[in-house]
Amino acid sequence: MSDRSELMQEQAWELLENSILYYQGQPIGTIAARDPDGEALNYDQCFIRDFISSGLLFLIKGRPEIVRNFLEETLKLQPKTGQLDSSKPSRGLMPASFKIQTIDQYEYLKPDFGDYAIGRVAPADSGLWWIILLRAYVIATQDTDLVHRADFQEGIRLILELCLVVRFDMYPMVLVPDAASMIDRRMGLYGHPLDIQSLFYTALRASLELLLPNADNQNILQAVRRRLPPLLKQLRENYWIDPERLNVIYRYRVEEYGEEALNQFNIFSDSIPFYRLAKWLPEAGGYLAGNLGPSQLDTRFFAIGNLMAVITSLTDEYQSHCILNVVELRWNDLIGQMPMKLCFPALEDSDWKTVTGADPKNRPWSYHNGGSWPVLLWMLAAAAKKMDRGELALHAIAIAERRLVLDQWPEYYDGPDGRLIGKEARRFQTWTITGYLLTKELVKNPGHLKLLTFEDEG
Amino acid sequence: MSDRSELMQEQAWELLENSILYYQGQPIGTIAARDPDGEALNYDQCFIRDFISSGLLFLIKGRPEIVRNFLEETLKLQPKTGQLDSSKPSRGLMPASFKIQTIDQYEYLKPDFGDYAIGRVAPADSGLWWIILLRAYVIATQDTDLVHRADFQEGIRLILELCLVVRFDMYPMVLVPDAASMIDRRMGLYGHPLDIQSLFYTALRASLELLLPNADNQNILQAVRRRLPPLLKQLRENYWIDPERLNVIYRYRVEEYGEEALNQFNIFSDSIPFYRLAKWLPEAGGYLAGNLGPSQLDTRFFAIGNLMAVITSLTDEYQSHCILNVVELRWNDLIGQMPMKLCFPALEDSDWKTVTGADPKNRPWSYHNGGSWPVLLWMLAAAAKKMDRGELALHAIAIAERRLVLDQWPEYYDGPDGRLIGKEARRFQTWTITGYLLTKELVKNPGHLKLLTFEDEG
Repeated sequence: MSDRSELMQEQAWELLENSILYYQGQPIGTIAARDPDGEALNYDQCFIRDFISSGLLFLIKGRPEIVRNFLEETLKLQPKTGQLDSSKPSRGLMPASFKIQTIDQYEYLKPDFGDYAIGRVAPADSGLWWIILLRAYVIATQDTDLVHRADFQEGIRLILELCLVVRFDMYPMVLVPDAASMIDRRMGLYGHPLDIQSLFYTALRASLELLLPNADNQNILQAVRRRLPPLLKQLRENYWIDPERLNVIYRYRVEEYGEEALNQFNIFSDSIPFYRLAKWLPEAGGYLAGNLGPSQLDTRFFAIGNLMAVITSLTDEYQSHCILNVVELRWNDLIGQMPMKLCFPALEDSDWKTVTGADPKNRPWSYHNGGSWPVLLWMLAAAAKKMDRGELALHAIAIAERRLVLDQWPEYYDGPDGRLIGKEARRFQTWTITGYLLTKELVKNPGHLKLLTFEDEG
Repeated sequence: MSDRSELMQEQAWELLENSILYYQGQPIGTIAARDPDGEALNYDQCFIRDFISSGLLFLIKGRPEIVRNFLEETLKLQPKTGQLDSSKPSRGLMPASFKIQTIDQYEYLKPDFGDYAIGRVAPADSGLWWIILLRAYVIATQDTDLVHRADFQEGIRLILELCLVVRFDMYPMVLVPDAASMIDRRMGLYGHPLDIQSLFYTALRASLELLLPNADNQNILQAVRRRLPPLLKQLRENYWIDPERLNVIYRYRVEEYGEEALNQFNIFSDSIPFYRLAKWLPEAGGYLAGNLGPSQLDTRFFAIGNLMAVITSLTDEYQSHCILNVVELRWNDLIGQMPMKLCFPALEDSDWKTVTGADPKNRPWSYHNGGSWPVLLWMLAAAAKKMDRGELALHAIAIAERRLVLDQWPEYYDGPDGRLIGKEARRFQTWTITGYLLTKELVKNPGHLKLLTFEDEG
C-alpha cells in the first residue's frame, strides 16, 4: 500500500469517527456531511441510503453495534398501522433520513419521509436498503436473534407489502413516482426505474433468508417466491440492451394487440437513439436499461441498478461481464476523472428541459444528471471483484485517490469527464469517505463480498 | 328543432339500438364501434368509460335496466380478494372493457384489465366512472335497494381502497402510471394527471351518498371525509392557473426546504411556456393544470378534467366561469370545427418525441395529442348549462351537427382545428353517437344535470 493511500485512510477514518451520531449515548448512524462552510439544510441528518456504506464498513471492521442500533431505531420510525390518510407516511415506509432532536433534555428521533424534502416524494429505496443492510448484519455477526424478533419480522413484512401490493399496473416491477430514490429530483424515473427494481430484487432475495417460515409470514413468503421469477425474467430480458437486442428493438413491429405481442411495451423505434447507441455500445457490451414502461425504454446507463445487478446476480454471468465490459471499454465516459457516473449520458437541451422540468441543479453533466459520485466506487469495486476483474477496481481507486483528499471528499463531481467539483457539492460528505474506505476493505479481502452477494438462481 | 337535427337523432337512436350488447338475453352494455370497414381489434368490446354516456342517456330515457345490468355484471368482474401476484389485476380494479364469449353455448364475460391492451396499463378511471354511473342510477331511479346490497357496498369500498391506499408519495391525489385513463398511451400523464383527479374527487363525493353508515364502511367513510378537503384544496389552489397565478409561478423562489415552502413542488419557472401562456390565457380565464408533481406543472388544458370539475363543483363558481371563459374566448383552439379538443396544445417536435416515446398514433394534433373528440360535447354542454351559459352548448352542437352524420360518427378528428377525420378513427363509434344524443337531452331538459352535479362544498 502506498503512503498516500495509508494517509488517506487514516484521515478518512478520523473524519468518519467524527461523523458518528450518538443517540441516548449510543452510536446510531452517521451524519450526511460535515462541511464547515455549507448551510446545514438537511445535511445534518442521517440518511438511510447514505448509511449503507458506513454500515457495511462497520460490519467489516467488527463494530456491529452501530449497525444494530441503526436498524433497531429506524425500525421504530416505520409506521406500522394501515391508514388511508394521505398526509401521513404509508404503513411500511422507511424514512429517507432522521435527525436527533432534543426537547427538555430528552432526545428523540425526527424522521423525514420526504415530507420536508424538496419535491416531497417518499423514498422507495430506504426500506429496500434497510433489508439489504439487515441481511449483511446477520451474515457478518451470525446474530439471528435480532432478525428473528417479532418486530423485525413485522418490519420486513411491511416493507415488502408496500412494494408487492398491486395497483394500477400488472408488471412484476414495483411502481414508483419520479424521484423516489437517490435521484430525488425529477429525472424521468417514474414508473419502473432500474435502480429501484435492482434493489427490489435484492431485497426480495434477502427476505427469503431473513423471514422465518411461520404462519405470520406464510403469505408474504409465497408472494415473494411468486414474484421473483417474473421479475428476474422481465429484468434480464426486457430491460437488457446489447447489440443483438438493439437489432431486435430497431425492427420492432408496433401496435400489436393481444397476449402474444412480442413488442409488449409498444416501444417505437424512433424513440431510441439508435445511431448514437450503436456507436457507443461495444460489441462485447450490454447493460440493463434505465426504465421500462408503455412506449418507454430509457436507454441511459444507470450505475446503481447495473452494479447492484452484477453484485447480487440479478444479471447472469454473461450479462455481468457485458456490464463490466461497458465500464472498461467506455472508461472515459463512465469513469473519466472520478469514479463514477450516476447515469450516462446526461439529458441535454430540450430533453433536459422537458424531463427534469428545467431543473438547474440537474443541468447537463451535473449532480444526478450525468454527475460523478465517488460513493459509487464501492459498488464498482464489489462488482469487479465479484467477477474476478479486480484490475478495474484498482484502476478506479487510483483515479479516486488522486483527487479525494485534495478536494476534501466532495459529495459529487460535474462535467462530462467528472473533472469539476460539483457545483453545489458539500465537502466532507460521509458516504464519499465511507465509500472509499469500504472499497479498500473489499479489495483487500473480497471475502467480505458475501455480505452482499447471492447465488445465481436464474 | 331543425329537421336535420331530428333526422340526426333518429339515425343516432337507430345506431345506438344496434350497438346494444345482449348477455344471456339481457341488454348489458354497448359495443365500442360498429364500423363495417375497420378491423375489430378491441372495438367489439364494451368499454366502461365508453358506456357512461350511453348509460346516462338510457337513464334519462327511462331505460334503467341496461344500466342496472351493466353495473351488476361489471361488479362481478371486479377482483375481490387481496393478492400480491403482479400478473393478476388488483383487488378493487374495474376492467377497461369486457367482451361476451361463448363456449359450449354458454355465454360468459371476458374482462380486459389492460392485460391485452396495447401498452398493458390498468385503467384507473374505470372504477371511478363506475361509481359515478351508479350514483346517477340511484338518482334517476330512486332505487336504493341495488346500491345497498352488500356486494355493491363492497364493490364501492374496494374501488376506493385501491385509490386511497398510500404508497410512495404523500399527496392527497391518487398516484397512477402514465396512460391509465381514456388517454391510454404515453402522454406525460404519470403521477397525478388532472383527468384522473377530477374523477377521483367526483367518485369520493358520490360514495359519501352511496355508502351506508354501517360498521363495514366506517373506516372508508372516515378516509373519504378526511381526503376530500386536502384534495379539493390541492386542486383548487395548486392546479389552478389564471393570470394572477401565472405571475406568482413566474416569480417562484426555488429550492425551498422545509414545511413552510411556498413553491412546495419546486417548480422551475423555465419549465413553463410563460410567454405563450401569457398571450393565450384570457384575462378573464383560468383552468386546472394537466398534471402536478415534483418540479412538474403541466400547463396543457385537458377537457375531461376541467369540464368534470365544473359539472361536479370541484372548482368554485368563479373558477368554473373562468374555465368556460377560456372555452369561449379560445373557441378556435378548443372547439374549432369539431367540439372538442381532448387536450390543448399538442405536444410537438422534441416534446412529442420525448414525452410520447415518438408515438405516431399520437403525433401532434392527432388522437389523444390535440385531437378533437365528439364525445366531449356532452361534458361541454353539461358544464355550460350548469353555469347558465347554454349558448356555448348550442353553438358547439351546431358545429357538431354540420359534420357528424356526413362523416358517419367518427371516433375522433385531427388537425389544429379538428377539420380532418381522425387518421385511424373508427366510424359509427358508439360514444360519438351517445355523446350527441345525451347532449341534446341535457340541453332540452337541464334538470337531468342532477345525475352528475354536486353542491359546492369548498
